[in-house]
Amino acid sequence: MESQLKSVGKRVPKVDAREKVTGRAIYIHDLKLPGMLYGKILYSKYPHARILNIDTSKAEKLPGVRAVITGFNTPEIRIGFMKDQPVLKKDKVRQYRDEVAAVAAIDPDIAEEALDLIKVDYEPLPGLFDPEEAVKEDAILIHEYDAKGKPLKNNILKLPWRLIAGDVEQAKKESDFIVEDSFRVTWVTHCCMGTSGCIALFDLDNNLTIYSITQIPFLAQNDFNAALKAMGLKGKNTRVINTVIGGGFGSKLDTHVYEYIAILLAYRTRKPVKILFTREEEFFAQPPRQPAIIKISQGCKKDGNLTFREVDMLLDNGAYTSWGATTPSVMMVPISSLYKVPNIKYTARSVYTNNIYAQAMRGYGNPQATFAVESSMDILAEAAGIDPMEFRLINVNLPGEITPQNFKVTTCGLKECIESVGEGLNWKDAKKNKKKKRGVGMSSLIHVGGGARVYKSDGHGMIMKVDDFGKISVITGAVEIGQGSETVISQVAAEVLGVFPEDIQIIKGDTSICPWDVGTHASRQAFVSCNAAIMVANKIKKEILDIAGKYFNVDPENLDIKNRVIYLKDEPENSEKQMPLDKLLRRAHFSKHGTMIMAETFYDPPNEMLNQEFKGNLSCTYAYGTTGVEVEVDTETGHVEIKKYFAAHDVGRALNPMLLEGQIYGAAVMGTGYALTEQLILKQGKVMNDNFLDYKILTAKDKIPIVPILVETIDELGPLGAKGIGEPACVPTAPAIANAIHDAIGVRIKDLPITPEKILKALKEKEKKG
Amino acid sequence: MESQLKSVGKRVPKVDAREKVTGRAIYIHDLKLPGMLYGKILYSKYPHARILNIDTSKAEKLPGVRAVITGFNTPEIRIGFMKDQPVLKKDKVRQYRDEVAAVAAIDPDIAEEALDLIKVDYEPLPGLFDPEEAVKEDAILIHEYDAKGKPLKNNILKLPWRLIAGDVEQAKKESDFIVEDSFRVTWVTHCCMGTSGCIALFDLDNNLTIYSITQIPFLAQNDFNAALKAMGLKGKNTRVINTVIGGGFGSKLDTHVYEYIAILLAYRTRKPVKILFTREEEFFAQPPRQPAIIKISQGCKKDGNLTFREVDMLLDNGAYTSWGATTPSVMMVPISSLYKVPNIKYTARSVYTNNIYAQAMRGYGNPQATFAVESSMDILAEAAGIDPMEFRLINVNLPGEITPQNFKVTTCGLKECIESVGEGLNWKDAKKNKKKKRGVGMSSLIHVGGGARVYKSDGHGMIMKVDDFGKISVITGAVEIGQGSETVISQVAAEVLGVFPEDIQIIKGDTSICPWDVGTHASRQAFVSCNAAIMVANKIKKEILDIAGKYFNVDPENLDIKNRVIYLKDEPENSEKQMPLDKLLRRAHFSKHGTMIMAETFYDPPNEMLNQEFKGNLSCTYAYGTTGVEVEVDTETGHVEIKKYFAAHDVGRALNPMLLEGQIYGAAVMGTGYALTEQLILKQGKVMNDNFLDYKILTAKDKIPIVPILVETIDELGPLGAKGIGEPACVPTAPAIANAIHDAIGVRIKDLPITPEKILKALKEKEKKG
Repeated sequence: MESQLKSVGKRVPKVDAREKVTGRAIYIHDLKLPGMLYGKILYSKYPHARILNIDTSKAEKLPGVRAVITGFNTPEIRIGFMKDQPVLKKDKVRQYRDEVAAVAAIDPDIAEEALDLIKVDYEPLPGLFDPEEAVKEDAILIHEYDAKGKPLKNNILKLPWRLIAGDVEQAKKESDFIVEDSFRVTWVTHCCMGTSGCIALFDLDNNLTIYSITQIPFLAQNDFNAALKAMGLKGKNTRVINTVIGGGFGSKLDTHVYEYIAILLAYRTRKPVKILFTREEEFFAQPPRQPAIIKISQGCKKDGNLTFREVDMLLDNGAYTSWGATTPSVMMVPISSLYKVPNIKYTARSVYTNNIYAQAMRGYGNPQATFAVESSMDILAEAAGIDPMEFRLINVNLPGEITPQNFKVTTCGLKECIESVGEGLNWKDAKKNKKKKRGVGMSSLIHVGGGARVYKSDGHGMIMKVDDFGKISVITGAVEIGQGSETVISQVAAEVLGVFPEDIQIIKGDTSICPWDVGTHASRQAFVSCNAAIMVANKIKKEILDIAGKYFNVDPENLDIKNRVIYLKDEPENSEKQMPLDKLLRRAHFSKHGTMIMAETFYDPPNEMLNQEFKGNLSCTYAYGTTGVEVEVDTETGHVEIKKYFAAHDVGRALNPMLLEGQIYGAAVMGTGYALTEQLILKQGKVMNDNFLDYKILTAKDKIPIVPILVETIDELGPLGAKGIGEPACVPTAPAIANAIHDAIGVRIKDLPITPEKILKALKEKEKKG
Repeated sequence: MESQLKSVGKRVPKVDAREKVTGRAIYIHDLKLPGMLYGKILYSKYPHARILNIDTSKAEKLPGVRAVITGFNTPEIRIGFMKDQPVLKKDKVRQYRDEVAAVAAIDPDIAEEALDLIKVDYEPLPGLFDPEEAVKEDAILIHEYDAKGKPLKNNILKLPWRLIAGDVEQAKKESDFIVEDSFRVTWVTHCCMGTSGCIALFDLDNNLTIYSITQIPFLAQNDFNAALKAMGLKGKNTRVINTVIGGGFGSKLDTHVYEYIAILLAYRTRKPVKILFTREEEFFAQPPRQPAIIKISQGCKKDGNLTFREVDMLLDNGAYTSWGATTPSVMMVPISSLYKVPNIKYTARSVYTNNIYAQAMRGYGNPQATFAVESSMDILAEAAGIDPMEFRLINVNLPGEITPQNFKVTTCGLKECIESVGEGLNWKDAKKNKKKKRGVGMSSLIHVGGGARVYKSDGHGMIMKVDDFGKISVITGAVEIGQGSETVISQVAAEVLGVFPEDIQIIKGDTSICPWDVGTHASRQAFVSCNAAIMVANKIKKEILDIAGKYFNVDPENLDIKNRVIYLKDEPENSEKQMPLDKLLRRAHFSKHGTMIMAETFYDPPNEMLNQEFKGNLSCTYAYGTTGVEVEVDTETGHVEIKKYFAAHDVGRALNPMLLEGQIYGAAVMGTGYALTEQLILKQGKVMNDNFLDYKILTAKDKIPIVPILVETIDELGPLGAKGIGEPACVPTAPAIANAIHDAIGVRIKDLPITPEKILKALKEKEKKG
């Protein structure tokens, strides 16, 4: 088959790339509707305080202001995974970014000015900013009641994460080597180039349209419908329209407070209302990745075989829950299933604090967990006296395996990933002939690669229609956040239909037009939408060939399409039995009882939701990969330079190597930032570095010599064999770098980011002990 | 069934009405794209002249001008039914409105200013403005060559219209009474409230998107693709997007020169280019209805039975052909098939003149032809000494008839229409006890009522998708030009699916999203799109009931849906066997191998194209109607006042009586304007009255006491029995009024409009003769 592929496997440029780089793509920033107003939000001045009074009278009088809303003059809308957050706060504020009022005005500057005229009286309360403090029995309560009004006794979220497989206690007894360590990860944020924004408007029947940058238009529709219900607008229709999205990375898996505020303002003013975040707001009012304190213990036999893995986590949830509060479910994936470990115990508690609340981010907990697991792997290998690469190969996952969490491993290229990275780094040699201050390290990853049933449906609907010119419209619910779903759908559809990717037009981003899709998350989009594309394209192809069969008076099974031409498989060169596709389509259309070809499908992948014990085959297939780096550490300054970077990934099939490499480049840089520089610094709950410079995001100037290695395992359930690859490459970076630093200078940093200060401090301590 | 209908047959308000009356609907006038330029067109200064030179150098230098194009610096694009019109003229101009140059600038005023700086040198040529002159053998040639470069010998269009049925010469011999008259009709124009306009833009792959107000998006796509080919852009995709349309009436059945100019300017500047007509341009540069000189002869036996009808026409085509050049094909409909006439001869010639060229307009030739036929009917009745109503009833069409043009009359309510109008007017009494200067008159009509196969396909595609909340998106190619297609599609879909019209959301107006439809013409939209809606809704319903059948463990045949609830037909009150539709949909979606319901269909009605003899069953069914009026004529001033106006129409089934009445009101006013006041006055080819006041359009102040009468015949092929009714009501108005005027004051006006001057002149002549 390989050699026959015409579109798939080719380095087809992203279909939306040129529109974006030439500034022609329409982002939410570019969109302006007739009569549109501008909304601005007033945030809390305290991390924890009681609201005594809000006086909006002065703001209301400012010329150009059209509405001023607070929790006191609007219906209560509660949002979040546990519905613990009112959109506009009226009893208490629980974090610095809490929304206490909002203004709609004819101009954004007027709206901003009006915010200054709103007077809020607070009674400050003591704050909890340390999860280890917040978790204590006698800690003050951040939420006194749950969403149903039931009193709460402590700050611990009622989400008891607990995965048990085998017998960890027994395994400990049988282990020859055991290590135990504690790791810390902190806040990082998505840094989307496009700041957040939306436009909400109501029609005259009170149906809502919202122009949004959500990654989950259909779940958002559900959320907004619920909000409408809270506003007394039951049974109305909500239309969610995506503009071009300037980066997602998980930041758009929730509906956000600003969207509900736009809805409330639009309903109040009967006008379209746009809210657009400043870069500062993007830093402090877009929830970041969760910080965590991770205790991990692992053991092995003398021969290196892992015996158990025990992990206990404390997560800082911040003031409210998002969907991201469920990241421990994905943290379980590497904890239970990265390398063969028969006995697993995982427990996690997530705790409310007065820090800004956290949400999903690329990898969805996996980078946090893998940092601990893969750092610990090196520590255990050292304890057992086994080379870390060798140690990983001893425990490598293999096809056919069923993991302790009941994942069914179909294809698995982890061995090839480890070996190819080892080869790239010249591992044995590098280890043997260690240059001064240089070191190598590696880390692997497992991630869902065939969808992930985290919602009742993991489905994807798709409609195709073919026109008289052989052009094909593909109507899909897939959300393009830069990953290239439109491009690979075009390639796959073109492949099946024997046409060219440029013949495919993707119609997307409108819940009223596009069939349902659960959203762009869990690296699922290419997997589900390309599977749907194959299904629906095959229907279309069958219809076409049936018509052609009648025309040529041959069995349609004996016909195929190539380069836009229908031909006889037996006599591919017989021009008598060939017809251009568009000609046949017109013939079918312009005949008695004319027909035009359309088809639809709904693909729901055969994966499972985790059961109450958090077990089940969450994904149709799993993505594996290994990152290996060589670093040079400047022991004078603590500066780490990455000299080599190999990222090997089991991608199933490379539908488009260029896009895959793009995903790997981007994720590797994100992972490197997570490892070395990035950190949202909170001081008593307040974000102190709300700009790219102080946040220390890596840029193109931080040249990292990334070499992607694509391992193809051709997965049975994947579209033409492909697996998801959107998130994986950012997962193993931090532990690989941490391991390499340890290899280079003998110190191990256990909390991220690994700053020069931490390295110098560790070197100093090592020297003291030395 | 009648009594069971929940949505159909109800006076459901137009779904788009409130958006329009509150100013929220987005017309082409409201649309502004980022970076958009404004195009303006330079028209000819002569009706016929050779172009010697065009100097654009000064215009190009005007700051803000981005492009100046002429026929000399752009590829030639030829448009029109006979491809006889180059978009930008470079050899000759043939009418005052000929486009010789165009400008794109950053501002419409700058573009306008630039037009004044373009210098065109002409060599004036003699003009032909009278079709009877233009048709002469020795007339100068307006087109020296046809589109293929073949020399032309005269100005007569190579469209030889000729319909022969039976033997007219023999019938003449057998007739007891024969009358022969000549009638004239003149230019009228559509007077759309929304002036014409478009925005064209190219993407970076040179695919075209055009925001358009066309009635025929898919045929327009075809036209624009051909233009792209002429521009060297073969195989590109064109996306036609409809904005809200401010009136159509047939004016948007062609693609127009201004659209191609926008395309050329957009391609030249690489920016979106908007062209928007002024009201003056709308009057002189939007082609009007064809004028014609109509000779008609009819005969009958003593018993009143018609023996023959012979019609010869000369049509003033103007300088170029549009689709409207084919109106004689529809003129044949009443000529051959209104009343039973066994012997028919119809010939027509269309001739080029230096007048502005003509195009389609509501009724598509039918009002012109019916004016002659139905005026002649009264004249013949008088000759035969038979009451005109009685005369019509003697010859009335009946179900089961096959007309001389081979139309298969299925249902036919003409008799009921004539009788109900007669009753309304108190015909016999009115005729007997004639008040001074008052008179009554009537006229009937036949029109296509079940599509019309004037193109290779009369088809309509439709896609439906159902969401988790029981809301249904209907994706349709139907174009809403005010007729209410969205509303009736919603009603019919709701009826079939047992939901409410407000549960239906219509997605329309985008060739990339919507399935193909031949366009809103020939009163076909409700017929074809509601038939498609029934087909696809039945597919959806079957899928829903199959799922429900499994759930309730009953035969799905025994289930139905009403008021959004699925119930057991045998036990409609058994709440155990009921389930809200949305609940069932979510259950189906959120289960293993989840499914969401979508379906599509392509409906191509079983009508026929006319054969080479212009015979065939053009439409699936035919619409009939009768208009009767009572007029009072002021013999001092010549003013005609309409005292009574009854419009009876065989509508098959009244899907929505309110919308039907709306169509009748509008068309009756348009017909009355055609009869009495409206006229585009051309002087040597130049439009002299380019404003509503001088054009004398009727307004709401011209109160006409229209009483619509809906006759339901429940047509077998119609959607729930319905026929098309978009055009008919404007067809019989002019002859009914002419007949009533004759009844009132004994003079017959044979050329439209029937102005006070013409009445006074006729009265004076009558007096002379008297």
